[in-house]
Amino acid sequence: MIEPANTTDARLESWLPVAADGDFPIQNLPYGAFQRDGATRLGVAIGDRILDLYALAEAGMTEDVCEPRLLQAPHLNPFLAAGRSRWLAVRERLSALLRVDGDARLRQANLERFFVARHGATMRVPMEIGDYVDFYSSIEHATNLGRLFRPGTEPLMANWRWIPVGYHGRSSTVVIDGTAIRRPRGQRRPPDAQAPEFGPTRRLDIELEVGFVTGPGNALGVPIPARDASEHVFGLLLVNDWSARDIQAWEYQPLGPFLGKSFATTISPWIVTLEALEPFRVRSRLQEPAPLEYLRVDARSSYDIELGIELETQRMREHGAGPITIARTNFRDVYWNMAQQLAHATVNGAATRPGDLYASGTISGSETNSQGSLIELSWNGEHPIGLPDGETRSFLEDGDAVTLRGWCEKAGARRIGFGCARGQIEPAEKL
Amino acid sequence: MIEPANTTDARLESWLPVAADGDFPIQNLPYGAFQRDGATRLGVAIGDRILDLYALAEAGMTEDVCEPRLLQAPHLNPFLAAGRSRWLAVRERLSALLRVDGDARLRQANLERFFVARHGATMRVPMEIGDYVDFYSSIEHATNLGRLFRPGTEPLMANWRWIPVGYHGRSSTVVIDGTAIRRPRGQRRPPDAQAPEFGPTRRLDIELEVGFVTGPGNALGVPIPARDASEHVFGLLLVNDWSARDIQAWEYQPLGPFLGKSFATTISPWIVTLEALEPFRVRSRLQEPAPLEYLRVDARSSYDIELGIELETQRMREHGAGPITIARTNFRDVYWNMAQQLAHATVNGAATRPGDLYASGTISGSETNSQGSLIELSWNGEHPIGLPDGETRSFLEDGDAVTLRGWCEKAGARRIGFGCARGQIEPAEKL
Repeated sequence: MIEPANTTDARLESWLPVAADGDFPIQNLPYGAFQRDGATRLGVAIGDRILDLYALAEAGMTEDVCEPRLLQAPHLNPFLAAGRSRWLAVRERLSALLRVDGDARLRQANLERFFVARHGATMRVPMEIGDYVDFYSSIEHATNLGRLFRPGTEPLMANWRWIPVGYHGRSSTVVIDGTAIRRPRGQRRPPDAQAPEFGPTRRLDIELEVGFVTGPGNALGVPIPARDASEHVFGLLLVNDWSARDIQAWEYQPLGPFLGKSFATTISPWIVTLEALEPFRVRSRLQEPAPLEYLRVDARSSYDIELGIELETQRMREHGAGPITIARTNFRDVYWNMAQQLAHATVNGAATRPGDLYASGTISGSETNSQGSLIELSWNGEHPIGLPDGETRSFLEDGDAVTLRGWCEKAGARRIGFGCARGQIEPAEKL
Repeated sequence: MIEPANTTDARLESWLPVAADGDFPIQNLPYGAFQRDGATRLGVAIGDRILDLYALAEAGMTEDVCEPRLLQAPHLNPFLAAGRSRWLAVRERLSALLRVDGDARLRQANLERFFVARHGATMRVPMEIGDYVDFYSSIEHATNLGRLFRPGTEPLMANWRWIPVGYHGRSSTVVIDGTAIRRPRGQRRPPDAQAPEFGPTRRLDIELEVGFVTGPGNALGVPIPARDASEHVFGLLLVNDWSARDIQAWEYQPLGPFLGKSFATTISPWIVTLEALEPFRVRSRLQEPAPLEYLRVDARSSYDIELGIELETQRMREHGAGPITIARTNFRDVYWNMAQQLAHATVNGAATRPGDLYASGTISGSETNSQGSLIELSWNGEHPIGLPDGETRSFLEDGDAVTLRGWCEKAGARRIGFGCARGQIEPAEKL
């Protein structure tokens, strides 16, 4: 019998080598899906390796805490449906199998059977996403976009401080880190023109977001109370909600964004669990006016997650200069938190299923260079972003690559990282 | 060798009894999913019966035209993915097995093995819906809603005649005909109030729509040209996009409808194929201005489908009076047709998968009582709908049941029906 341990204790060490400043110490243990032997398997990141959950289940090292089929599926949905008590039991077992003073079975086994190198692994979207909802929960972002899209009017609409505004995005185009992003074509109306034109977007943008993936979910007609939301949030990942601003501006009234968003949404490959993030749970932002009763939650419902956007142009790549960071911000200051988002999205009885994706909306801060989109960073092109070598950017050009990063750090805790969500722009399809 | 026949020929007769004015003659053969022996099976409606495709495949009566697994799945997605040539081959075989002068194998078999009664069968949503898109393609409806939601402004927005405006709905809450609809709760702001209230919607409405279900779909980044759309449209069904107008009005700006729609969408159980509808294909409505190139389609891209809305209140039910028809309209006059909708939805490279659902948006005509929603029929409550026995309705009350019906009729063709999509309103969940 192995003594249960606090799986986030900073003193825990793995017998596997893990860099002190790496994203994936034993305190993290995020879930993903990777290709092995021609099939998709579930895995957990640890240091520079992926622990193969299929192999672990096959070897019987988890069968007393979790039915093998949940870990041997090609996506996380069955495991997500099993709920928090199962997630905790598996986390505790993985921690025991990986720590120096734990269960020695894995350490003594043939490591090639149980681990693959993280570097070079082909990752997959780890869940089947039934519905994808994108919120609009950063007050700084909503204010900025209001100013840019509806100049001369009150930037925040009357409903914004009362409801976590959101809309449904397209699940079929959620792609994994590294997937090339083809510049979309569509209708856009040039300023002062009467009629729209058709062609590749000229205002291709990013949106830096953090998403969460749901666990068991609710039955149709039975809302999830805000206080129970954490039972239904499995973990978090990075989301880049690629946006074609000219297409979006022309199409979005009155039913919201459609083709300006639906061409691609990139997610990071590792889902970081709420357990791993617990040391970084923080007090949520003060909300005024006070939310309605169904949106009231524990004051500590936010998470302190540092976020960054890196840009690498074709020229930077050719010159071997490496990417530069164009923005830094933090998830903690997002106005509407995840518990509120989930309570709101289900308060009308709508069903959430295992594997659903909910994203925060663009995360912008109030400091210089803390905005999560180029339209904000370049203020609609009025102040292009200066890059090394004299290049500038207002929106993305072909060959540009954008990488989102996220991590948690504080004294007395181990760094918990999200890895990254990268996409490089390909020219529009030849017609 | 059975001679191939034109499967829509009005002279074809089945050896099974089929009422002359019924929805499901041998010329129709729509697909659905039903419960049998504790499992979900695919079936085809014929007269008052469901032909069990699982049993048919098991008996080897289709194996030379279709892999058994496509017909033995619990949903249509594998069959949808197989494409039009397979759909046509199976249709031809089903027609041969069911017609008087065709393949005698089925007629001579034990009918109980192959058929169940349609009446009393438990139907299921017949496809796994990856993404659900709802358009806004009736010009009369969009004009009416513009007048009601944005009084004092131009009712049709500048983009409306250029793009088939649409948005993503929620797949998890698409339910089958007969499913009870619980009155949703949510935020709504009373007229002239500063702050919103929370409670059951007071303006529960319907939207009469026709949807289509997709076949193979496109790869990410590769649009479906309008001229190829029919290769990707498997068939059509009725859609009731239940709407909570007060919730919708408060939430919908700037990102579109969310909780005002996401609580439930009812579909009819039978997918009527494009082949069955071919005799009712008609010239599409004139579009001015002419659409951009990628939206230009065959002039005959619309379908002449009669539509009706029936309402039955609790009191009508208690008095045994039966439902009354409160509106009649037709699908043919919808401004943007299905080929244009699908071409538009994928022109940015967004992927459509087998089983995706695209709905037309509310279908309204220009005649009296030809509008597809109560907010139009009652003109936002200004002119409540008069019912027998002195009752009136502006929006739905608990106990009300709404049934959508659709059918095609013309001289020289057999009637092709859609069956119905019914839902009865239950009181809001007790808190």
